[in-house]
Amino acid sequence: MPSIDGKRFLASLHALGECGALEGGGVNRLALTDADKSGRDWAVNRMRELDMDVTIDAIGNIVAVYRGTEELPPVMTGSHIDTVRTGGLYDGNYGVLAGLEVIATLRDRGIRSRRPIAVAVFTNEEGARFQPDMMGSLVYVGDLPLEQALTTQDAEGRTVGEELERIGYRGHEAVGSPRVDHFVELHIEQGPVLHRRGIPVGVVEGVQGISWTEFTFEGVSNHAGTTPMELRSDAGYVAACLTTFAHDLALGYGGRQIATVGSVRLTPNLVNVIPNRAVVTVDLRNTDAQALERAEREVLAFAMQAAQTQKVTCRHRSLARFDPVAFDASVVDLVAREAERLGLNVLRMPSGAGHDAQMLARVCPTGMIFVPSIDGLSHNVREDTAPDDLIQGTQLLLQILLRLANRPS
Amino acid sequence: MPSIDGKRFLASLHALGECGALEGGGVNRLALTDADKSGRDWAVNRMRELDMDVTIDAIGNIVAVYRGTEELPPVMTGSHIDTVRTGGLYDGNYGVLAGLEVIATLRDRGIRSRRPIAVAVFTNEEGARFQPDMMGSLVYVGDLPLEQALTTQDAEGRTVGEELERIGYRGHEAVGSPRVDHFVELHIEQGPVLHRRGIPVGVVEGVQGISWTEFTFEGVSNHAGTTPMELRSDAGYVAACLTTFAHDLALGYGGRQIATVGSVRLTPNLVNVIPNRAVVTVDLRNTDAQALERAEREVLAFAMQAAQTQKVTCRHRSLARFDPVAFDASVVDLVAREAERLGLNVLRMPSGAGHDAQMLARVCPTGMIFVPSIDGLSHNVREDTAPDDLIQGTQLLLQILLRLANRPS
Repeated sequence: MPSIDGKRFLASLHALGECGALEGGGVNRLALTDADKSGRDWAVNRMRELDMDVTIDAIGNIVAVYRGTEELPPVMTGSHIDTVRTGGLYDGNYGVLAGLEVIATLRDRGIRSRRPIAVAVFTNEEGARFQPDMMGSLVYVGDLPLEQALTTQDAEGRTVGEELERIGYRGHEAVGSPRVDHFVELHIEQGPVLHRRGIPVGVVEGVQGISWTEFTFEGVSNHAGTTPMELRSDAGYVAACLTTFAHDLALGYGGRQIATVGSVRLTPNLVNVIPNRAVVTVDLRNTDAQALERAEREVLAFAMQAAQTQKVTCRHRSLARFDPVAFDASVVDLVAREAERLGLNVLRMPSGAGHDAQMLARVCPTGMIFVPSIDGLSHNVREDTAPDDLIQGTQLLLQILLRLANRPS
Repeated sequence: MPSIDGKRFLASLHALGECGALEGGGVNRLALTDADKSGRDWAVNRMRELDMDVTIDAIGNIVAVYRGTEELPPVMTGSHIDTVRTGGLYDGNYGVLAGLEVIATLRDRGIRSRRPIAVAVFTNEEGARFQPDMMGSLVYVGDLPLEQALTTQDAEGRTVGEELERIGYRGHEAVGSPRVDHFVELHIEQGPVLHRRGIPVGVVEGVQGISWTEFTFEGVSNHAGTTPMELRSDAGYVAACLTTFAHDLALGYGGRQIATVGSVRLTPNLVNVIPNRAVVTVDLRNTDAQALERAEREVLAFAMQAAQTQKVTCRHRSLARFDPVAFDASVVDLVAREAERLGLNVLRMPSGAGHDAQMLARVCPTGMIFVPSIDGLSHNVREDTAPDDLIQGTQLLLQILLRLANRPS
């Protein structure tokens, strides 16, 4: 088996990290911003240096194909390069650049696998600017209509379609092409489990179900000093009650139930005015589909009840909803087997985060590899992974891709 | 007694309301904005039409004096014309324009009182852009150093001094001049009490104590899907706990205790990122100084405790702090007596809101008159008061000012 060039690979992570770099470390490359464009340009340029066939589809997904010896559907790897507002160097970028390092390694040695190997960069995986997250891969597999995705607006009312045009990534390739033979995504864990247990490889068996709901409470704004407590319709208070309820519900469920209120917007948001409007998001996740549905029902019921008690109205809309996903058993086993061949301990685990791989799993046998995140930090400028772990994971990806691409029909 | 011109007076409220008018009603005239400048220009122009001597002091307070027959310290009325972001036509503006209507009425009839009558417009009463609120009157009475007020910054880092310069209201008059003989402020109640009981005049005996504290909680931002609940340092959750605690504390105290969390700012404020930072304000008010101090201690202790439990840091700073104020008994009685002379029922009551009058009360005998707020709405574009109540209140102000200005030494 050929070995990847660890030095070159680590350098590529830092080179891409220059695009949208934040003062003092970290990256802000929100989807379809100028920073995202500069990252895309960097990646496409690298793909062309590797003589890959690069196509951009109508939702801005970038697919680069390294030709095989036969005209067969490609084995695909890849991830995303958009980040949250305060992101790190590895989330998404690691999987994309590891794929390109694999291709560079094969090309250096003139190796061609039987099937082509494709590296994909999917649009707006984070969902930090446009919801839902994993938008590019969701459109790729045909489960989000292209038109609906293109007309999605950000907080300032700009649409995905306009922004794709603006940065020059509204491509002509039909979405969903090429048809994919297998998909394997390499990603940092973004959680503390592997790092705490000192295990270098996570064999990802599936992905937690995800439910994002936005609640909008509307009451009456009024003077904070002259309105008796019992005569208030305080939308901010209801939002706070929902926040604590969701948090405590997750603690109560235990197991893999998680609840996060990450975004709260009060209007007018002044110290001496009772908020007449509160927009709050609840992010619920669980590997257990039934428990996730129960949590959703309880959170909704509480929100309605609390709103009624406080004499405020309650509207809600789903921003994203994905059932738990189980990856293909044969791919999961292959990941474990190849890791053991490399002498790497593995932990079979679910993914707590959503990933493009869960979308590809709907159309082809799919698996994922995790490497440790130091202290579990992610969506954080201090996100980090040990260089050896990054390199070992990329070597493992190379071996898995070659096995899949060279297997007989 | 001369009668004010109700039609002219109501027209003046609507004319001033054009400055910073919001689509669909209401006013946004945050302190020292262009809209505030346009309102100030309108008021100064009106004062000059009435042959008043207009001075602007170093903190931007506007004082217009209608000369008396003797060179004595003036009897002063007035209020403010800055508003919150979503304000109405009456809060503050009513007191200023009623004062000018009184002068217009005296001037029409060639009436000069023994003492001069001054109408003041105090800078930044609302505190919606620069804290503390009541800034202009606080500097006027010498309890906030001019330099400190001028260097106060808004959320964008612009200072009061720069903004006063920019809109042309950084005056040359020394603050605190002229020395004031008596001060009487006419204001809408901004609460529901008078309207609900159908009483046209509130005789204000004093003002609630006010305590504004800003809490900043800092934890660790992290991926919402991969961080087990028990490993989080969620600053937003602590802010929510503090919000519900303060609210429930006020309900528990009962009496005149009020607590409001009007402003919450999360960072990065994204649906799928655990907030690493939450800045939240707590507004506590009570007429009972001891109870107010107890509430402050309990809120602070809870914030520290909750922060520690959630492994987030807690910083806090006071944005404003005023003890309860009792107005001068002789002025309070005069307000009640003159209202009865006009055949108006009165209710003796405290003010739930802070007012410039509570600052002037530190340097001269002071009182306040309230008129009803329909449904108690204030700091709201739907703030309203019945025309008859507005006119009666202004007539009452005229009679009180004449009594005070004409009284023998």
